[in-house]
Amino acid sequence: MAEASAKQRTVGALLFKGFELLDVFGPLEAYGILPELFRIVTVAEKAGPVASNQGPQAVAEFGFDDCPHLDIMLVPGGFGTRNEMKYPAMIEFVQRRSGEAEVATSVCSGAILYAAAGLLDGKRATTNKLFYREITGYRPTVKWVSAARWVQDGKFVTSSGVSAGIDMTLEVIAQLVGRETAKRVAVGMEYEWHTDANWDPFAKIHGLV
Amino acid sequence: MAEASAKQRTVGALLFKGFELLDVFGPLEAYGILPELFRIVTVAEKAGPVASNQGPQAVAEFGFDDCPHLDIMLVPGGFGTRNEMKYPAMIEFVQRRSGEAEVATSVCSGAILYAAAGLLDGKRATTNKLFYREITGYRPTVKWVSAARWVQDGKFVTSSGVSAGIDMTLEVIAQLVGRETAKRVAVGMEYEWHTDANWDPFAKIHGLV
Repeated sequence: MAEASAKQRTVGALLFKGFELLDVFGPLEAYGILPELFRIVTVAEKAGPVASNQGPQAVAEFGFDDCPHLDIMLVPGGFGTRNEMKYPAMIEFVQRRSGEAEVATSVCSGAILYAAAGLLDGKRATTNKLFYREITGYRPTVKWVSAARWVQDGKFVTSSGVSAGIDMTLEVIAQLVGRETAKRVAVGMEYEWHTDANWDPFAKIHGLV
Repeated sequence: MAEASAKQRTVGALLFKGFELLDVFGPLEAYGILPELFRIVTVAEKAGPVASNQGPQAVAEFGFDDCPHLDIMLVPGGFGTRNEMKYPAMIEFVQRRSGEAEVATSVCSGAILYAAAGLLDGKRATTNKLFYREITGYRPTVKWVSAARWVQDGKFVTSSGVSAGIDMTLEVIAQLVGRETAKRVAVGMEYEWHTDANWDPFAKIHGLV
């Protein structure tokens, strides 16, 4: 990542049928506390309502064809990734837009969309711990890290399951605009930020370490 | 609350212009892990897309006029509450539906909608800590608790700011369907559950204790 700076960046949250609610809205809550620094857009293959894994629908403001340039890409997980990882239009979008982005992030099983695009081969990455063996098995050429809250390798910042996306996002904000600002965001969310990327009690619970 | 039981309950998340994203989707993520026990519905004055405080829109499945019976009511906060607390149709809906509900919950400044309806007079309740003095000042007849992650008084369970809604929801799940189940939900979300209702470092940060 570049040095901390105060320019406004565009964060693009990818939506698809069966996306995990908190994977998207935990990170967007954090970015959303700093609207002068982060413009939030939502994007799906086609603009309009998209059903989450939990049922409630969110609205994709843009489709793949009219989505503006994304400085920060946010790829959520959820059971929907099982279909999306095999869907050429999705993989092509993820590949092209993460290539153009400054930072490419994922939460939970969202990492598999970068992995399926071949973008994580030889790179260190993580994903959620409940379905860790299934997800990592799809792409063993990635250097999967079993115990990590998030893993940063170049522009790719992949996080563990669901709520881990909040900790990862706060770290991205810290690197892009400053650590004190990120702390203020955490306080604004009344969130106890896990600042250690290696904190991961869930890897142990699931017998991965 | 009634004793723990396995019947399916309907959770209704209230949406209005300027609702806080994580206030809604943190709790819904938790309930959504147990679809056999919790049916999630979203409701606004009129069905359709509703813009959050952060910008992204969520879809209200129902309007006030066709919303099904709600067993659990979820009232989020966000800057939108400043308008909604003065809006008779909203206050009437909150009053009627929380009266019929088994559990009436709020996150962040959402408590002011119950308070504006007079439902919290003489009851203990909490709200977010950044705007604590403003919010509590609107209704001093509530027994506001300045340091609390959440406060339970009868059917009303009010939580502190934003991410506190997740801890509160896990406690509601624990009471309604069992503590071990709630622990599994927290692990599924890879969330470090603050199980102590009195845990509140943010009250101190904001000089409230």
